[in-house]
Amino acid sequence: MRIIENKKELERYLETISFIGYGVVEEIEKKVKKIIADVSSRKDEAVLEYTRLFDCKEMEPVDLLVKEDEIEEAYFECQEEEPKFIEALKIAYENIYQYHLKQKEETWLYTKEDSVLGQIIRPLERVGIYVPGGNGSYPSTVLMNSIPAKVAGVKEIIMVTPPDKEKKVNKYTLAAAKICGINKIFKVGGAQAIAALAIGTELIPKVDKIVGPGNIYVAIAKKLLFGVVDIDSIAGPSEVLIIADSSANPKYVAADLLSQAEHDTMARCILITTSKELAFEVVENINGMLKANPNPIASQSIEKNGAIVIIEDLEEATQIANMICPEHLELCCKEPEDLIFKIKNAGAIFVGEFSPEPIGDYIAGPNHVLPTSGTARFFSPLGVYDFVKRISVIKYSKEQFFKDAPFAIEMAEKERFLFHANSLKVRLEDVQK
Amino acid sequence: MRIIENKKELERYLETISFIGYGVVEEIEKKVKKIIADVSSRKDEAVLEYTRLFDCKEMEPVDLLVKEDEIEEAYFECQEEEPKFIEALKIAYENIYQYHLKQKEETWLYTKEDSVLGQIIRPLERVGIYVPGGNGSYPSTVLMNSIPAKVAGVKEIIMVTPPDKEKKVNKYTLAAAKICGINKIFKVGGAQAIAALAIGTELIPKVDKIVGPGNIYVAIAKKLLFGVVDIDSIAGPSEVLIIADSSANPKYVAADLLSQAEHDTMARCILITTSKELAFEVVENINGMLKANPNPIASQSIEKNGAIVIIEDLEEATQIANMICPEHLELCCKEPEDLIFKIKNAGAIFVGEFSPEPIGDYIAGPNHVLPTSGTARFFSPLGVYDFVKRISVIKYSKEQFFKDAPFAIEMAEKERFLFHANSLKVRLEDVQK
Repeated sequence: MRIIENKKELERYLETISFIGYGVVEEIEKKVKKIIADVSSRKDEAVLEYTRLFDCKEMEPVDLLVKEDEIEEAYFECQEEEPKFIEALKIAYENIYQYHLKQKEETWLYTKEDSVLGQIIRPLERVGIYVPGGNGSYPSTVLMNSIPAKVAGVKEIIMVTPPDKEKKVNKYTLAAAKICGINKIFKVGGAQAIAALAIGTELIPKVDKIVGPGNIYVAIAKKLLFGVVDIDSIAGPSEVLIIADSSANPKYVAADLLSQAEHDTMARCILITTSKELAFEVVENINGMLKANPNPIASQSIEKNGAIVIIEDLEEATQIANMICPEHLELCCKEPEDLIFKIKNAGAIFVGEFSPEPIGDYIAGPNHVLPTSGTARFFSPLGVYDFVKRISVIKYSKEQFFKDAPFAIEMAEKERFLFHANSLKVRLEDVQK
Repeated sequence: MRIIENKKELERYLETISFIGYGVVEEIEKKVKKIIADVSSRKDEAVLEYTRLFDCKEMEPVDLLVKEDEIEEAYFECQEEEPKFIEALKIAYENIYQYHLKQKEETWLYTKEDSVLGQIIRPLERVGIYVPGGNGSYPSTVLMNSIPAKVAGVKEIIMVTPPDKEKKVNKYTLAAAKICGINKIFKVGGAQAIAALAIGTELIPKVDKIVGPGNIYVAIAKKLLFGVVDIDSIAGPSEVLIIADSSANPKYVAADLLSQAEHDTMARCILITTSKELAFEVVENINGMLKANPNPIASQSIEKNGAIVIIEDLEEATQIANMICPEHLELCCKEPEDLIFKIKNAGAIFVGEFSPEPIGDYIAGPNHVLPTSGTARFFSPLGVYDFVKRISVIKYSKEQFFKDAPFAIEMAEKERFLFHANSLKVRLEDVQK
C-alpha cells in the first residue's frame, strides 16, 4: 500500500485512478451486438442456445422459468436450516423499505390564475433485475434492486440470473426473491438476458427498465440497448475512501479498507489521514488481517490501487474526497458531523466509527447500489426516483391563453416554426372575434 | 393521411411506428469514435480542425469563445428592434422558472432510534448545453435546457453551438443565453462539441452532464460518452397524439397536427377520435392550411406517418395512447379531465381546446424537452431532478450497531464476503467486551 505525503505524488495517483475509459473493448462489443441481434430475431431459441453455451449445457426450454416449487423449497430449506438468515433478510427488507418510502414523490397540480399546471408521478409498469449467478449468492442484490421498485409502485418485477452447471439458482438468492415478491425469475444471464428483457421474447416479457450488476457483457449490452429500455447507471470499479484523524481506530479502518478490497482487484481503497501514526498502524493491521485470512483478490487490490494520503487538516481531506468522488466515504474522526456538508461528491457517507460500509451494504436501509468510479459527480444511489416517470400537465383557460399566446407566437416566429404560430393564431383569432 | 377504422389496420400501423432501433448507423458511429479520440488526444487543436471542416473554414482559436460584447450586442439589437421578443423571453423565463421551482427537492435526515439516516441533495457543479446552430434560431431550447439547471443550483452552465459560415451565432439564441445567465458560450458543434464537454480541453471545461438536442452525430457522441459524463434522454422522432370527440374544433386539431408535422418528416401526427365527421373535417382543414402555407416537410410527415384512428369510445382512445406513449398528448374533448388519470404513458398532457402544444413549447412553464419515440414508457420531461445528485447518509449509534450488525454479518457470510463480515465483527467484539 503506497503512502503519499506530497502534492506531486497525490496528483499522479489521482490521475491513475481518475480515468474512466469511454471506449469499450471492441471485441466484446462485437460479440454483444451479435447476441442482441440473435435474440432480437430468434427470441427464446437464441436465448436457450446462449444459455447452453455459456452456463449450462443441459438447459431445456422448460427449464428457463424458475418454478414456484423451486422458490418455495429454497425458502423453506433456508428457514429450516438457517432461520437467522431469513430473519436477517426480513429485517433488511423492512429497513430498506422504510428508508425508500421517504423518497416517494407525489403528483402535484396547481392553479395559476385559472389555468392548471402540474406533474403526475407514475410508476414504471414492468422492471427487470439482473442478478449475477454462477457460484455466487446475491440476496442483498435482490433486496436493494427490487425494493425501490416496489415502493415506487412497479407492478411487475422480472428477475434474470444465470443458472449454474446443474441448472440451479442459488437458494439464498431465491429466498430473497420470495421475500421481495419478485413476479417471475428466469434462468438466463449475460448479454442474452439483457437483450431478452429489452426486446421481449415469447417467454420473457419486455420491460421498461433494467437494473442490477453484471459482468462486462451485461454492462455493454445495457449500454447498447439504452434508449430501447432505460438502464441504471453504468458501474465500474468500486471504491472506499476513509477520512480519519488520530482518534480513529486503526483496526476498524484496516478492516473497512479490506472489506472494499475483497470486491475485486480493481477496487480502490484509500485512506486520507492527518495522522502518520494511524497510517502505519493501519498498514500493520491490514497485513495482520491478510495473514490471518489470506485473500489474493484483497491483497492485489490493496497492493495495486490502495493508498494512504497524509494531509495537514481535515478540510484538505474533504477537498481531495470531492475530487475523487468516492462511491463510499467513511468519516472516522472526532467531529465527523462537521465534515458532512463539505462533501459535494460521494455515493454514500458513513459517519462515525459504528457506521462501517458493510452495515450499509446489508441492513441500514439506504441503497447499496451507488455510483462508482468517480460518477458520483453526476449519478445518484439507486432509488425510488429511478422507477417512476413524470408526466407534465398543462390546462390553459381561454383568458390565460389570450394573455400568453401572443408571446408564444413571437417566439415561434423567431424560430421559424410557422405552423406552431398558426396553431396559436387560429385560436387567438376566434377569441378576438 | 391514412384513416384507420379497424383493429388489424391499427395493429399494423402501431408496428410501423413503434420500433425504436437499438442499432446505430455503423458508419456514423465509426466517424464519431474517431472525433472523440481526436478531441481526447489533441484537445482544442482537434476541436478547431473539425469546426473548420464542418462549420466555418475561417475559424481561428480566438473565435471559439463567444465574446461578452457579441452577447451584449445581440441582446441590445433585439431589444431595440424587436422589444416584443425580449418581453416574450422574459415572460417565458419567469413562467418556466416558477414551474420548475415546484420540482426542487430538499435534503432530508431523520433519526431512527439514535441513528441518523438521510439523503443530501446536491446540484451538479457544471453542466453543458448543446444548442443547434447553422441557419436556425433556438431561443426556447436555451430557456428549457438551462432554467431547470439554474433552479437546481448548478453554478456553471456552458453552452456550445455551431457557428454559421460567417463565424456567427444566431442573435435570438444569444439573447436567450443572456437572459438565462449562461456562463460561457463556445462556437463549437457536432460530436466534437460533445467530446470537448465530456473530456475537457484547454479552452472548454469538462462538465458533469450534457443536455440539449442535436443531429445524429451529437446523439451518438452523447450515447458513446454516457458514463464519462451524464446525458439527457436519447431523442428520436417526436410525436403528437390528439384524442378528440365530436365537440372538438377541426380547425384547431388540424393546426395542432401540422405544428408537430413541421418538425421533421419523421414526426408522427396522430388523431384518435370517436367522430368520423371530425376526421373528415380535420383532413379538409389540413389540406386547406397546407395549400395556404405550403410546407414540404409537414406535407411529407402527414403523408408518411400521419394517421386518424376512428374508435368507439374515449376509453379505447386512452388505451391506444398508453400503447403509443406519445411525447405530446392533447385531450380535445368535452370532459378532458376525466381522461387525465387514465393516461399511464405520455411526456406531457395538454388539456382542453386552449392548451395547444405550442403554448407548452414556449410559454406555459413545464419543460418542452420531453421523451420521444415511445420512451415516455420510462423517461420523464427534463427537470430539476436531472441536475442534482443524491448522497446517502448513514450514522449508526453504538447501540443500533450492536442490534443490527449480527444480521449484516449473517448476510455477508452467505454472500461469502468474509472481509465485509470482518469489518462488522471487529467492532462487535469491542462492543461486547
